[in-house]
Amino acid sequence: MGITLIQTGGTIDKDYPKSIGGWAFEIGEPAFLRIIEKLPKSMKWEVTQLLKKDSLELNESDRKGILLACKNAKNSQIIITHGSDTLLETAASLNSINDKTIVITGAMRPERFSNSDADLNFGMALAGVQMLPAGIYIALQGLISDHKNLERDLETGLYFINKQNK
Amino acid sequence: MGITLIQTGGTIDKDYPKSIGGWAFEIGEPAFLRIIEKLPKSMKWEVTQLLKKDSLELNESDRKGILLACKNAKNSQIIITHGSDTLLETAASLNSINDKTIVITGAMRPERFSNSDADLNFGMALAGVQMLPAGIYIALQGLISDHKNLERDLETGLYFINKQNK
Amino acid sequence: MGITLIQTGGTIDKDYPKSIGGWAFEIGEPAFLRIIEKLPKSMKWEVTQLLKKDSLELNESDRKGILLACKNAKNSQIIITHGSDTLLETAASLNSINDKTIVITGAMRPERFSNSDADLNFGMALAGVQMLPAGIYIALQGLISDHKNLERDLETGLYFINKQNK
Amino acid sequence: MGITLIQTGGTIDKDYPKSIGGWAFEIGEPAFLRIIEKLPKSMKWEVTQLLKKDSLELNESDRKGILLACKNAKNSQIIITHGSDTLLETAASLNSINDKTIVITGAMRPERFSNSDADLNFGMALAGVQMLPAGIYIALQGLISDHKNLERDLETGLYFINKQNK
Repeated sequence: MGITLIQTGGTIDKDYPKSIGGWAFEIGEPAFLRIIEKLPKSMKWEVTQLLKKDSLELNESDRKGILLACKNAKNSQIIITHGSDTLLETAASLNSINDKTIVITGAMRPERFSNSDADLNFGMALAGVQMLPAGIYIALQGLISDHKNLERDLETGLYFINKQNK
Repeated sequence: MGITLIQTGGTIDKDYPKSIGGWAFEIGEPAFLRIIEKLPKSMKWEVTQLLKKDSLELNESDRKGILLACKNAKNSQIIITHGSDTLLETAASLNSINDKTIVITGAMRPERFSNSDADLNFGMALAGVQMLPAGIYIALQGLISDHKNLERDLETGLYFINKQNK
Repeated sequence: MGITLIQTGGTIDKDYPKSIGGWAFEIGEPAFLRIIEKLPKSMKWEVTQLLKKDSLELNESDRKGILLACKNAKNSQIIITHGSDTLLETAASLNSINDKTIVITGAMRPERFSNSDADLNFGMALAGVQMLPAGIYIALQGLISDHKNLERDLETGLYFINKQNK
Repeated sequence: MGITLIQTGGTIDKDYPKSIGGWAFEIGEPAFLRIIEKLPKSMKWEVTQLLKKDSLELNESDRKGILLACKNAKNSQIIITHGSDTLLETAASLNSINDKTIVITGAMRPERFSNSDADLNFGMALAGVQMLPAGIYIALQGLISDHKNLERDLETGLYFINKQNK
């Protein structure tokens, strides 16, 4: 029994491999590999490096791949790291899964940044998969919620809980 | 509506103010003040700087102070930062509170350390106070659980979930 | 008497202000403002925020501006933070200054990154301006040298000291 | 040809290996091993883990060991990491070496801290060993100087350059 971690890309994994020229900026190794080094060695993880995409670039085929990865996961507790722009779309595409607790998370600043929110968000997701019933949740910006109750303010970029849905 | 944060001290808050001589090492400003800077400005916090003690030094009077601070908190969501050695004792002393969701957390390495687990643990607590029913919980070492289900292995220092209590 | 710090931009100052959409990535406040907070308050600095450009975008007019900023600096010790691609060109353009010790530095990874080389490079520059005679020097990638002795391997992006020039 | 790095202990190397109980705090692996990972792989280092002591605990025998390690070093460029309290005493004890450039450095906050000055100081030392003539130097608190010109204000803990000695 452990927790399955799935990388899809996004800000959380952005790294800076540039050696010569210009503004190169890439999605690197999954940030969660560095994060889980801070936790006890006794914890068990299944790691899936599925995609390295900005979330605005995820297409239908990518989302089918994420769905399949969740279905095939060995564990019923799943954390997906993901770009911050299309969390709700990916969450909706996983809605048919009803026997696993899935938390989609990411970061507003790359985990490589010393002022990143990546550890905070991953911590929220880690609590979520352990404590919540089966469902598809989102953890970002200090919030954790069933994805159906979340909306995004497109001007500020902030997610908020829509009380009416609750 | 917001979240109440209570500082009691412990490893998470250890800082290094030394300028001359020897090994000085002190409990400084609450680490949670630095952590919440990474979250949206729109979040609301009530901050209580109650104690700056190593958790082995907490006495009965201190625990009464923590109980009172929880009872007086404006919010029903409370995060307490605490030393990692006596989390269970403090949790037990809060057991009479049954209308608030309280998560006690801390860190194995000071938040000032670049490899600290403080953000991860605080993230777990932050998810816990939002998603869990009233009760007294502990979040540390990648675990979050009702305090009654937790025990500590005194050789390794690791907390674990006692399945029999569940 | 103090040290003049001049921001021209480059990797060292790259920040991640994105809130919505895509891959935005900007040159932010000068990293040296965060770096000098780690030094004694008694140190004296003159700060000039001159440019926020990737160094491949610096043109002749920008370099004239840098030259002027150096000439106008109150101090004879000057550190310029700069993109890593055209350090040699900017150094050459300052060659007419012969009464100040100028060290041009930068970083291979933004100062915001927890594994950045920015502090190391700034430290090299800080030692350089204090210890070296008037001249134009470069500090990067663990090297510090009069700019005339440096060359760059365009395949690896590494600077090296050309022994023949010495 | 490379640079010899000698660990003697001090704040720069303080780590937090505590798992159970109290305020444990130890001098760990040399911080310079983590620092040099930020530099190009092509740089050559000779690493000597000599002592793990607070600098107030260094005795005459320890200083003889440091002197011997410097004499035996393969390189003529030597960086010694050291506690911040007795840099001047150790520097004086190395005074008989006149064919090597030795910079003694350390930190006011452990390298493990995210706000540490360790990288800055190591960067100063790294510039110093490359650019300065043979001698015994100190790099700390934003200063680099021949040790004979430095004094310490025992109230503030700050080193300063004694202009009269110059």
